[in-house]
Amino acid sequence: MQEKIINLLRKEKGYLSGEEISQRIGITRAGIWKQIENLRRLGYEIEAFPHRGYRLLNTPDRLLPEEISWELGTKIMGKNIFSFTTLDSTMDFAYELGLKDFPEGTIVCSETQRKGRGRLGRSWVSPKYKGLYFSILLRPKILPHEASKFTLLSAVAVREAIVELTGLECLIKWPNDLLVNERKVGGILTEMQAETDRVKFLIIGIGINVNTEKRILPSQASSLKEEKGEKISRIELLKESLRRLERYYLLFQGKGFSPIIREGKKYSAVLGHQIKIVSHQKIIEGEAIDLDSEGALLVRRESGFMEKVLAGDVVRVR
Amino acid sequence: MQEKIINLLRKEKGYLSGEEISQRIGITRAGIWKQIENLRRLGYEIEAFPHRGYRLLNTPDRLLPEEISWELGTKIMGKNIFSFTTLDSTMDFAYELGLKDFPEGTIVCSETQRKGRGRLGRSWVSPKYKGLYFSILLRPKILPHEASKFTLLSAVAVREAIVELTGLECLIKWPNDLLVNERKVGGILTEMQAETDRVKFLIIGIGINVNTEKRILPSQASSLKEEKGEKISRIELLKESLRRLERYYLLFQGKGFSPIIREGKKYSAVLGHQIKIVSHQKIIEGEAIDLDSEGALLVRRESGFMEKVLAGDVVRVR
Repeated sequence: MQEKIINLLRKEKGYLSGEEISQRIGITRAGIWKQIENLRRLGYEIEAFPHRGYRLLNTPDRLLPEEISWELGTKIMGKNIFSFTTLDSTMDFAYELGLKDFPEGTIVCSETQRKGRGRLGRSWVSPKYKGLYFSILLRPKILPHEASKFTLLSAVAVREAIVELTGLECLIKWPNDLLVNERKVGGILTEMQAETDRVKFLIIGIGINVNTEKRILPSQASSLKEEKGEKISRIELLKESLRRLERYYLLFQGKGFSPIIREGKKYSAVLGHQIKIVSHQKIIEGEAIDLDSEGALLVRRESGFMEKVLAGDVVRVR
Repeated sequence: MQEKIINLLRKEKGYLSGEEISQRIGITRAGIWKQIENLRRLGYEIEAFPHRGYRLLNTPDRLLPEEISWELGTKIMGKNIFSFTTLDSTMDFAYELGLKDFPEGTIVCSETQRKGRGRLGRSWVSPKYKGLYFSILLRPKILPHEASKFTLLSAVAVREAIVELTGLECLIKWPNDLLVNERKVGGILTEMQAETDRVKFLIIGIGINVNTEKRILPSQASSLKEEKGEKISRIELLKESLRRLERYYLLFQGKGFSPIIREGKKYSAVLGHQIKIVSHQKIIEGEAIDLDSEGALLVRRESGFMEKVLAGDVVRVR
């Protein structure tokens, strides 16, 4: 009912009388008033003018399902939306949905996370109303070693959304970070439940520091607001990310991984650079040469030996 | 208390008086009688002789934790035992334990499963008290694509246990079946929760048709009892499997995967044969040539082209 009222007001440029709302969606005028009060509490600015009716002045930058759905235009991503003010971890919640056979494209977002996490059990700072922290359930027909392809796919999609909304340059630091001005503004985390023969489901976790102040972020990290110098709409960035995630997901289904690799290479922060990778207690140093067809990083050591790296932490060296 | 009494009786060859039991474990003689009654209900045959005491005649072939633990002698496998008469699936239960941070080596067994499953969501027929159906939680430090190594490791270990207890020849049909006289008597299922960078935990599921009658098994399948012509102790087979699983797991931790590959090759039912593999809607036909260092099957097609197969269903062709 709430969603119906807000969508009526959205479509109407001027005022909409209580009587009209009442007729269109079958609710008493007292009922409308109650809903309007609720909407205001959620952050909607709605003007009520005697004899003219209601008018929507502003929608809140809150991850409300009705805000996310509005003109989203996707077929898979965000078809089911679970939205929380507080959650331990959107990953864990989405994982439970995966076990319970929820369809792919189901998303879980939260305004803050108590135990937000990054790769390898590291924590992900998730201050309330500042960033985007969401997870997507996917069920692609792939083998477990292909899961990392979806980290790149997601990085490519979210990078585009960031560029679209902010106009900032944004690069992908293999395997899972998004950088603006060489500072980390986002990260992707891909988890799965799998047999050796097939992935049962993937959970893609996306964290973006949108309007977060630098002083509450880890060193080396930044936010879009800090880099751009102005606030960014979280809800628009989420929606744009979902649209582009869907586009690349469909592209992957139709044409495989190679067009995505191509995009990933174009906007790589590591290719062509001298890097050091720490992975599984092994350190590899050399020049990042290429991404192979699986998304693995090819590194040429000083000895000339070419090493294929599946995972690890990259540091650029000079 | 029950376990203490049964272990006292096990150690004693002859009779043990109620007074002695009472002194050693601090329980009243009426209490002992009650426990003896319980033990009998579980299938223990215990003789009670006036003025002499109690004597253990026979232990039941039931997957009771006290039976599994008795002289098991492992340090990891079976340190925690969850044993059920009926369960939907030992895989699902073990998976929950994995999410809840139970230690590796925790096992889950059930006398029957309502929804026992094999690879790719196929069902695994699990008639009550006839076979072994158990899952093991492991936490090795590996990448997702290495999980299939543990299918082979488990097949190698369980094969040895079968040979040890039955004297039957037993071969491994890549990737996950155990064959006796070319009929399937067991299967391994490996599932995981993972990030792209690391496996958080593995669940190894092992199903063995021990004393199952052929008429209630799928065609092509058989049981150890059918092939051997006599009943096999399920509890001994379980214990022997756990011991050998531990040995190979420690071997893997110390020396990597190559000694296990070597064992796997020795007892392969497919190497050297003309085979057909159906995987991911693709069919490959050729000669099974080798297992590579990752446990993938190398198949030489008629064209001479060598194909590396990560997963699939193998059929031998003539």
